[in-house]
Amino acid sequence: MKKSIGARTLAFPTPVWVVGTYDANGKPNAMTAAWAAICCSKPPCVSVSLRKATYSYGSIVARQAFTVSIPSEKHVKEADYLGMATGREVNKFDHARLTPVESILVDAPYVHEFPLILECRLLHTLEIGLHTLFVGEILDVKADEEVLGEKGFPDIEKVKPIIFGPEIRTYHGIGKYLGKAFAIGKDL
Amino acid sequence: MKKSIGARTLAFPTPVWVVGTYDANGKPNAMTAAWAAICCSKPPCVSVSLRKATYSYGSIVARQAFTVSIPSEKHVKEADYLGMATGREVNKFDHARLTPVESILVDAPYVHEFPLILECRLLHTLEIGLHTLFVGEILDVKADEEVLGEKGFPDIEKVKPIIFGPEIRTYHGIGKYLGKAFAIGKDL
Repeated sequence: MKKSIGARTLAFPTPVWVVGTYDANGKPNAMTAAWAAICCSKPPCVSVSLRKATYSYGSIVARQAFTVSIPSEKHVKEADYLGMATGREVNKFDHARLTPVESILVDAPYVHEFPLILECRLLHTLEIGLHTLFVGEILDVKADEEVLGEKGFPDIEKVKPIIFGPEIRTYHGIGKYLGKAFAIGKDL
Repeated sequence: MKKSIGARTLAFPTPVWVVGTYDANGKPNAMTAAWAAICCSKPPCVSVSLRKATYSYGSIVARQAFTVSIPSEKHVKEADYLGMATGREVNKFDHARLTPVESILVDAPYVHEFPLILECRLLHTLEIGLHTLFVGEILDVKADEEVLGEKGFPDIEKVKPIIFGPEIRTYHGIGKYLGKAFAIGKDL
């Protein structure tokens, strides 16, 4: 018997991704978002949902671009900080001792210390309610050499992305390997 | 030095969520989606991106509703199967020995065996490219009693959601607890 918990943003897993932008003065900013996903294969796209009140919101609209920097679990404190402070008041990169790197492809900075980066140009904007969903076309993915695995792709066990649990407000790491996708279901 | 990997759908983590629908004849269907996320807090919403070619696509458009059933890692084979077979040819619930339960709130079925369920009414449809992004308003979240933790919310370590690694095509479980969100970043 399932118990009703009400209309809540309660689903697992959600990602911990850091959205990079430049403000009107060219100051780099970074904010953590968990309401985010890959949302299309062709063209490859991600969505990030931000509240209009965030400082990053205006920067995305103005620059029509953003990056997504995916932190490793060793940077979980920095990721948490980037979700609490506002770029309106501080330079979050400086405070968190992180290094902004200017993307060559889009008008936005990414986080040098994080192992996996997406560079995105704004493709669609969808107003939903408290949050606005931005769809960005992924123009390139960049990764640190040391997280690359077989076939030259990033290895999830080396990237060690962070998982966020909404409502329960916890962070978790990546756990054990469960199987090969598009393969293990053939046994049924 | 970061290495360019090209414009790919490469980001971690992505979820393994199962979208439940009824077709025109009332046959229940379930398909696995990883291009999915929470996308708004008020109203609480999720997005799921589906290819137009999927059988579920037409069902969501026709019924204006879907559910999201979140499988536990013990059902990883079933989740993988539901992402490969098509409801156009088979009754996937029957084949995977899963039980469809009719939602009282929306015109869609959910998966009885999976511990966490979202019941959604279609709010927005955004054509992106190969995929169409459906935004569903979460009308209720339901969970099995045995996955509930403190404060009556589902415990992510009991739900044991599955994580998908795009491109590398692997499934992983939830790993170790890393810290409290909106808290550990205050140390910086």
